Amino acid sequence: MNVATLGDRKTAGTSRPDLHILRATPKTVHWGYFDAALAPVLKVKSGDIVRAEAITHHAGDAPELMMDAEITALYQGIPESDRNPGVHIMTGPIWIEGAKPGDVLEVRYLEMTPRCDYGSNLAANWGYLFKEFGEKERVTIYRLDRASNQAEAVFAYDFPGKYLVPGTITHGKDCCREPALVGVRVPVRPHLGTAGVAPDAKGRVSTIPPGLHGGNIDNWRIGAGATMYYPVTVDGALFSIGDPHISQGDGELSGTAIEASLDCTFQLVLRKDLKVPSPLLETPGEWIVHGFNEDLNIAMRSAALEMLGLLTEHRRLSRNDAYSLMSIAADFAVTQVVDGRQGVHVRIPRGIFPPDKVKD
Amino acid sequence: MNVATLGDRKTAGTSRPDLHILRATPKTVHWGYFDAALAPVLKVKSGDIVRAEAITHHAGDAPELMMDAEITALYQGIPESDRNPGVHIMTGPIWIEGAKPGDVLEVRYLEMTPRCDYGSNLAANWGYLFKEFGEKERVTIYRLDRASNQAEAVFAYDFPGKYLVPGTITHGKDCCREPALVGVRVPVRPHLGTAGVAPDAKGRVSTIPPGLHGGNIDNWRIGAGATMYYPVTVDGALFSIGDPHISQGDGELSGTAIEASLDCTFQLVLRKDLKVPSPLLETPGEWIVHGFNEDLNIAMRSAALEMLGLLTEHRRLSRNDAYSLMSIAADFAVTQVVDGRQGVHVRIPRGIFPPDKVKD
Repeated sequence: MNVATLGDRKTAGTSRPDLHILRATPKTVHWGYFDAALAPVLKVKSGDIVRAEAITHHAGDAPELMMDAEITALYQGIPESDRNPGVHIMTGPIWIEGAKPGDVLEVRYLEMTPRCDYGSNLAANWGYLFKEFGEKERVTIYRLDRASNQAEAVFAYDFPGKYLVPGTITHGKDCCREPALVGVRVPVRPHLGTAGVAPDAKGRVSTIPPGLHGGNIDNWRIGAGATMYYPVTVDGALFSIGDPHISQGDGELSGTAIEASLDCTFQLVLRKDLKVPSPLLETPGEWIVHGFNEDLNIAMRSAALEMLGLLTEHRRLSRNDAYSLMSIAADFAVTQVVDGRQGVHVRIPRGIFPPDKVKD
Repeated sequence: MNVATLGDRKTAGTSRPDLHILRATPKTVHWGYFDAALAPVLKVKSGDIVRAEAITHHAGDAPELMMDAEITALYQGIPESDRNPGVHIMTGPIWIEGAKPGDVLEVRYLEMTPRCDYGSNLAANWGYLFKEFGEKERVTIYRLDRASNQAEAVFAYDFPGKYLVPGTITHGKDCCREPALVGVRVPVRPHLGTAGVAPDAKGRVSTIPPGLHGGNIDNWRIGAGATMYYPVTVDGALFSIGDPHISQGDGELSGTAIEASLDCTFQLVLRKDLKVPSPLLETPGEWIVHGFNEDLNIAMRSAALEMLGLLTEHRRLSRNDAYSLMSIAADFAVTQVVDGRQGVHVRIPRGIFPPDKVKD
């Protein structure tokens, strides 16, 4: 194993990459689950580039602003009874030629473009402060300003009833829309909340808890310019994307981000020369690993051990050196506390290492 | 209450500020504790500026590099039996004229300059992975390069025995010094690990767990350019500083940062027009509040509620708006997991709010 090869951009494939277009239709999405038995909707070879649509399952929170004809057809094409056990609309799966359990799928996220100018944040029944808010759910709709790359709230409403059905559609007449967060403008950072390979399991695996397959990691750094490394556990890898966001804080406190459909372009590279024990995120400036657990204390410990592994195995530091370095230069953060299995991630800057170590 | 006044730099005092020099000597430090009954070593009026020495309790980890004559005299002047129940050397306390319980002490950190070019990181018996490292303690000594504002390890050694006495002195002959982290250079971010006002309690209060008085918060953002707001609980506030660091990651995993003495310049401003329920950190770009608890889950919840309070009381957002904003734009992180009472902090960018709200 050699992490020297992390970040190496020369091994994308042996032949000229093809560009594939993958639209989100009732035939190309699966709603609420990963499943190793799903037939692939697209087959690619290592190095190929895919332009795929990721559709938010919150488009119905402001249907006149967030649903176009294709999204409406998608919602109509998949009955509520087929949206389970999780909530996210997943585009895929994509079969990567030659991928075998034990390989690593490197996904280079090249571009993420909002499909429309609106997104929804739901203070959900699974939100962190649901009880503190009297078990009320509330939707806040944000508008994206592409020129400034900022978003601002346009209105909010108390959700009528309980938000239980993924893809619920709430029309303006169903609720009282009120002004919200007047004058506040937040930075836009488009990313995928959920993406990953099929877990090696029988039947449907919920998209809600994140895990070794990736899934609902909800780290807002999984955007354009970032690369994810996923451990492959089934033939073909079976990669899917969904749960698009245009902004989220570390923690995702209310239960959701600004949920908004995205067009995503990414390159899929099969790595047989690399091992990662869990999903690894590489941004231009940092390497990031994650710990997941229902208990934040255990997620924290898991993240610490994952980083120790990364530094010793991939950066070839001694355990002693890695431990000292983690204390003085690695930053631990709370990824999310609302996906059942909570997340802690830890970032180490890439620029602190000597350049020769990257090459050897 | 009006947080409009957060960040307001016009109210530093009614008269011309004095500059006070506060050296660290056996008579001007207290080692291991806060104590409301301590006699002040300096009295200042609101708006005054203090240049004070903060001395690391880890100078003995490489005494020939980190101890000068004054530090040696300081260590010799305070017997081991008087260093308890915590570990940090605290310079102070400073009495602020007119400060009363219920007021807020605003501390504007203007400058933090390393006293020498070396610092120590201890993988301590209270470190997060102590068991995973076979209950071994290890010291790594770092050298500061002032030109690049980076630090690199110069040597490391297994600590002989158990690191139990604050201010332990370990000479090169006592251990085997080995190379460490060759070629790795980490960013330097000088800050105070521990600083705060005297808690309203009888007798000595350990410097180790952070709390409402501030204390051992160990947030590396408490450096030059940052402002802390501490709730005052005793007459005169009795402010002290210590535990200087030149670099630390969020988490402080091994139990310590790069511990290195600092010369600190700060302005003390008494605020009777402001209330904060817990220590509030203001950096040029962010407001940051903290949650503390032995259980990271509870520290997280506490941090979330602190931020809800900040946004509703100081930014005048509705609770609904604040909750949505926290989910999409506030970042939660793990401050430290090694001070008994663990810390989670949450940052909200200052620039997202409309400027008129700051003035009203």
